[in-house]
Amino acid sequence: MAFVTEENLTALAEKRWATAAPPRLAELTTALVRHLHAFAREVRLTEDEWLAAVEWLAATGRISDDKRQEFILASDVLGLSTLVVQLNNRFEPEATPATVLGPFHIDGSPTVPYAHDMSDGVEGTPLYVTGRVLGLDGVPLPDVVLDVWQADADGAYESQLPEVDEARLRAKYRTREDGSYCVRTIAPRGYAIPMDGPVGDLIARTAISHFRPAHIHFLIEHPGHERLVTHLFQQGSEYLDSDVVFGTKDRLVVEFTERPAGRTPDGGESRTPYLQAEFDFVLQPSAGAGSRP
Amino acid sequence: MAFVTEENLTALAEKRWATAAPPRLAELTTALVRHLHAFAREVRLTEDEWLAAVEWLAATGRISDDKRQEFILASDVLGLSTLVVQLNNRFEPEATPATVLGPFHIDGSPTVPYAHDMSDGVEGTPLYVTGRVLGLDGVPLPDVVLDVWQADADGAYESQLPEVDEARLRAKYRTREDGSYCVRTIAPRGYAIPMDGPVGDLIARTAISHFRPAHIHFLIEHPGHERLVTHLFQQGSEYLDSDVVFGTKDRLVVEFTERPAGRTPDGGESRTPYLQAEFDFVLQPSAGAGSRP
Repeated sequence: MAFVTEENLTALAEKRWATAAPPRLAELTTALVRHLHAFAREVRLTEDEWLAAVEWLAATGRISDDKRQEFILASDVLGLSTLVVQLNNRFEPEATPATVLGPFHIDGSPTVPYAHDMSDGVEGTPLYVTGRVLGLDGVPLPDVVLDVWQADADGAYESQLPEVDEARLRAKYRTREDGSYCVRTIAPRGYAIPMDGPVGDLIARTAISHFRPAHIHFLIEHPGHERLVTHLFQQGSEYLDSDVVFGTKDRLVVEFTERPAGRTPDGGESRTPYLQAEFDFVLQPSAGAGSRP
Repeated sequence: MAFVTEENLTALAEKRWATAAPPRLAELTTALVRHLHAFAREVRLTEDEWLAAVEWLAATGRISDDKRQEFILASDVLGLSTLVVQLNNRFEPEATPATVLGPFHIDGSPTVPYAHDMSDGVEGTPLYVTGRVLGLDGVPLPDVVLDVWQADADGAYESQLPEVDEARLRAKYRTREDGSYCVRTIAPRGYAIPMDGPVGDLIARTAISHFRPAHIHFLIEHPGHERLVTHLFQQGSEYLDSDVVFGTKDRLVVEFTERPAGRTPDGGESRTPYLQAEFDFVLQPSAGAGSRP
């Protein structure tokens, strides 16, 4: 081996990492070496900057735990999370587009019946989200699970509230025979990403808005179809055009219509006015299900 | 703003981060966005791979503390650390080349006199490192501080030995009037990088040797000259041509000559045979010191 020089170093590092197994790991690590070195060369990264980056990464790891995932947040604000979603969810134009999962999903939400109130006493404007889940061919899909989660009227998720020890503003709904679903909840609010960690420190040194527009998360899985991770955004919500995690898509912006007190979409009664958002989710058939050439 | 698509996302993210201040931070973050996105697009990073990367980064941060710097190790094995050293230490060919600092330097080593034995009873083959510190013009430099640290004969650094609470195999020496220095110590050994963390997990999935050849670290600072962070490597040492952190350079490989019992380089006596390494460090004048056009 020739000893290392500024000129031969990248090729040498690539050659070493090309021995990784399986081959996909070698593909990833060699590409990482190439792009990381190209970055450092382009900006001529100084030793102080390199050390600051190392310390930032360590701090970002240390603040992360089961509930707080600061590296997901870092990926979000750099646009990487949304990019990865785009690269892996190239759906037909008729299918509901995917967007970021975000750091607040909690596994194992309770399965609840049609029109169950997942807000369970949490204060806010009552909201019904109603519609159907359909195949790309427009056929309604029964028995589809919709895993739903959202922030409260203060913009806080369960995982940000350490005192909460049962499911809060999250639940799994199922579509009925006609493909219909009804989520009863409260209107979410736009919120700031956590600004008290290393990602916030960085954002604070830019003119980037650190808010997300009001939205509700959906994770929909059904056999024969691609998993759909998406949001519904409230039309007219603040920050729609500056979503700090780059998650907003035209197709996912829905009117939250004001309804008077009286009959509710599930056939009940509301003594107060409420909001209703109507949205049909259209699932992309699995790549293996013969829908693509 | 147009909402996000696979096509416009990178430009949008760059535009946002271009608002960072000072301008150098904007330069760094926009270049990071561009290269990070180029990497993800090139390999078409999957969502599972993205999540595995997020978890790897968090684990790497969590295992890091004041003594263990796993992100430095990650940077080392990817060749990034050496690249950054190269980019920032483009010395004249006559100057002693720089190499990586590594994760084991500890600030505040005790200042010791000429020929002080920094091994202080730690077992190993006695070694004298002798020579001078010179300017690029060959003039000896008096009163130059050499901050020296190394692994023991088992390949362990002080920071890897939690039970050690005073300086062990590290010290600061000063050159005498004639520019000469004498470090008395024991021969270091090549060693494995820590394999019990996330970096080790990754290295274990490659054919990459996880060893470093035997070496001693030097950090030399002197007014009017560039800071020199370097190693001396033992000629004939194993792993010279496969140094896992890409640190080896021809110019830094030195013979550790066997000397019989008797007179030592500092004018003392050794009852046992010992090793001697002779090396003159040549410092690069500061960029501001008029040495460059």
